[in-house]
Amino acid sequence: MTTALLTDHYELTMLQAALADGTAHRHSVFELFARRLPTGRRYGVVAGTGRLLDALEDFRFDPDTVAWLRERGVVDDTTCDWLADYRFTGDVWGYPEGELYFPASPVLVVEGTFAEAVVLETLFLSVLNHDSAIASAAARMVGAADGRPCIEMGSRRTHERAAVAAARAAYVAGFATTSNLEAGRTHGIPTAGTSAHSFTLLHDTERDAFTAQVASLGTGTTLLVDTYDIEEAVRTGIDVAGPGLGAIRIDSGDLPSLARRVREQLDGLGATATRIVVTSDLDEHAIAGLAAAPVDGYGVGTSLVTGSGAPTSGFVYKLVARADDGDALVPVAKKSADKASVGGRKWALRRRSATGTAQAEVVGIGAPPHDDGDDRSLLVPFVEGGTRVHHDTLDDARARHAAAIAELPAAAHKLSAGEPVLETIFER
Amino acid sequence: MTTALLTDHYELTMLQAALADGTAHRHSVFELFARRLPTGRRYGVVAGTGRLLDALEDFRFDPDTVAWLRERGVVDDTTCDWLADYRFTGDVWGYPEGELYFPASPVLVVEGTFAEAVVLETLFLSVLNHDSAIASAAARMVGAADGRPCIEMGSRRTHERAAVAAARAAYVAGFATTSNLEAGRTHGIPTAGTSAHSFTLLHDTERDAFTAQVASLGTGTTLLVDTYDIEEAVRTGIDVAGPGLGAIRIDSGDLPSLARRVREQLDGLGATATRIVVTSDLDEHAIAGLAAAPVDGYGVGTSLVTGSGAPTSGFVYKLVARADDGDALVPVAKKSADKASVGGRKWALRRRSATGTAQAEVVGIGAPPHDDGDDRSLLVPFVEGGTRVHHDTLDDARARHAAAIAELPAAAHKLSAGEPVLETIFER
Repeated sequence: MTTALLTDHYELTMLQAALADGTAHRHSVFELFARRLPTGRRYGVVAGTGRLLDALEDFRFDPDTVAWLRERGVVDDTTCDWLADYRFTGDVWGYPEGELYFPASPVLVVEGTFAEAVVLETLFLSVLNHDSAIASAAARMVGAADGRPCIEMGSRRTHERAAVAAARAAYVAGFATTSNLEAGRTHGIPTAGTSAHSFTLLHDTERDAFTAQVASLGTGTTLLVDTYDIEEAVRTGIDVAGPGLGAIRIDSGDLPSLARRVREQLDGLGATATRIVVTSDLDEHAIAGLAAAPVDGYGVGTSLVTGSGAPTSGFVYKLVARADDGDALVPVAKKSADKASVGGRKWALRRRSATGTAQAEVVGIGAPPHDDGDDRSLLVPFVEGGTRVHHDTLDDARARHAAAIAELPAAAHKLSAGEPVLETIFER
Repeated sequence: MTTALLTDHYELTMLQAALADGTAHRHSVFELFARRLPTGRRYGVVAGTGRLLDALEDFRFDPDTVAWLRERGVVDDTTCDWLADYRFTGDVWGYPEGELYFPASPVLVVEGTFAEAVVLETLFLSVLNHDSAIASAAARMVGAADGRPCIEMGSRRTHERAAVAAARAAYVAGFATTSNLEAGRTHGIPTAGTSAHSFTLLHDTERDAFTAQVASLGTGTTLLVDTYDIEEAVRTGIDVAGPGLGAIRIDSGDLPSLARRVREQLDGLGATATRIVVTSDLDEHAIAGLAAAPVDGYGVGTSLVTGSGAPTSGFVYKLVARADDGDALVPVAKKSADKASVGGRKWALRRRSATGTAQAEVVGIGAPPHDDGDDRSLLVPFVEGGTRVHHDTLDDARARHAAAIAELPAAAHKLSAGEPVLETIFER
């Protein structure tokens, strides 16, 4: 399926007008960045890069697509003909997936003719705005869980295809598993799940349901114990499965106190290795509030897939430089007071102390400074002359993310609202 | 592309266990409803029905899908074999698209064997939770715009495929156009757009840019005037296009005062018919705040595609009745204090006064009351014996939505936080 129409109408009308006066062929640099982090956030997490590069490969105006544009009169024949031959032949650099970003970090830099770069605006923004919002929320949850596994189970609360991307982004940020089977197939993410309340209600008794589940899925399964009375369900569960039951799940009520009572009850029944998984509208704050409770895993749904209050990242895609008639690259920027941007093609590095702690996000124009060995350069090549040169796996991104988080000063892990943990410094 | 894996892992493990003990074949009724509206909202808008019915038709476990489930050991061979033959053969009723809903409205009722209905849970929830959240936000914006057109332009701020669905949902709720070209192709929604700041910055001068745009797109185009200085841009725009210029767009600054100044300036230049379109992080409150300003259209992005603070609808999908061994239908419900539900297959009607004003949402179990002519029955058949019988167009949904909104008491249109405008009454 082509991704070429996941594009705003105005990109093609701009293209038409620029083809007509010849400026479409001016060499241009577009930059994707966030003016600010979502309110109160300490850092952002880049996710979606792999999907973005896949989507770029599928960005083709095939005959059906061109026919539709022509028939609907979206753009003129000259533009339709140009689009029919569209191939991106430029360069793309970016912060690799899993990396952290801060206000004004040049998360993606796209260089080519105006024509070939302008039409990618909406697609690139959609992918990165969504996936990074999810990963940024997920990273806070993983931090709050402090080593206990987080299970992604929010598919039902978001668009059915966004759900697959959300599972992927959560995995980049350290989630252990997802409930989403398509995320398992498409992205190789481990999937997990056992049963819902409907399974218990389907049966004449809770004991019948637990017996059926254990018989079919084994004693390692997770029994959901809050359909009727939790204490009775735990007793029944251990009676049916024996003390080797894998886990129980609690999906309602006051989770910290319930977890303690159930832990005591399980231990009293000899089920000392039976894990307790909690779900029920958890977010990073609820997870942190369960740190002292005997909980072995967190299932997170709604708050994950909606970015826990920040469902989009606020990335914009701006022309920052373009050639003049003499092919010299001219920095350009909008002047509006509340939406100003900085012109010019950027470099970016994370300034680090000699002991490896991140100290600042440094962004500049022109030649990057000599790397003294402590700092870390952030932009890597994704596409060179139209050819994709970046093929990181999800596990690469996951490892990179863990390393980038480990570099941050301790204040990064505060869940309370505050300023970005690193200041962005412009050097010119 | 199959939709069958847009499904949570646990649906298939439940299926496996229920196939093993025979309960999978018990006749069952699932209900999709919201326990509450998003905080402060007066009503909700159902959207996504058409997409849901399309997705149901594509819900097939094709050989590749079954092979993946088998290879990954998601479920056992018996279950894989059953899934390979999967066809939904049951019945679905629901609130048709565009209709309003309230807490506990039975928005969708799915009846069939447990096996065939349980596997649809995640897909159905994903579609309706997303699309209804967008439509519910869009309806408030359309109401606040009070007849002025709203333009959907949020694609870049949400997942690239969710963007297409968001444009569709906004159209159901009364938006005039979308920027999203795929929404134009897939759903036939009118698309619109002209140019961005990058087009102005591409050119050596703003005059060059406007000249190129007007030459290519005609004097009816919309010029974006806030790249540098708005007053100068308006003067240049009229100088280039003449007083017949279609529209100008302002995307930053204090919009009410800017709109007034620009209107005066345009009128002074003889451009009395040139429209003023405003964009820049608008939501329903900002739109309402512009009611007295000389504005001719609102472009809405981020707040629309993120549901204006409520990015998901909170719909759940619950087993409410199932057969016992004797095939009698038994109402069932979870007992948990904070997540209780009401068992039994429901009917639903909107109680209306003799003058046609909606007064209450009435939901009951058993035989529906005799319709006195004022009330309106809400559930319509979507699928009968596995065959889709509902084929409403988007324009049908749009007209239905407008009619349902017109029925509401005036308090529905308050944008301030409050209670649902209709009380939901249970009758048994």
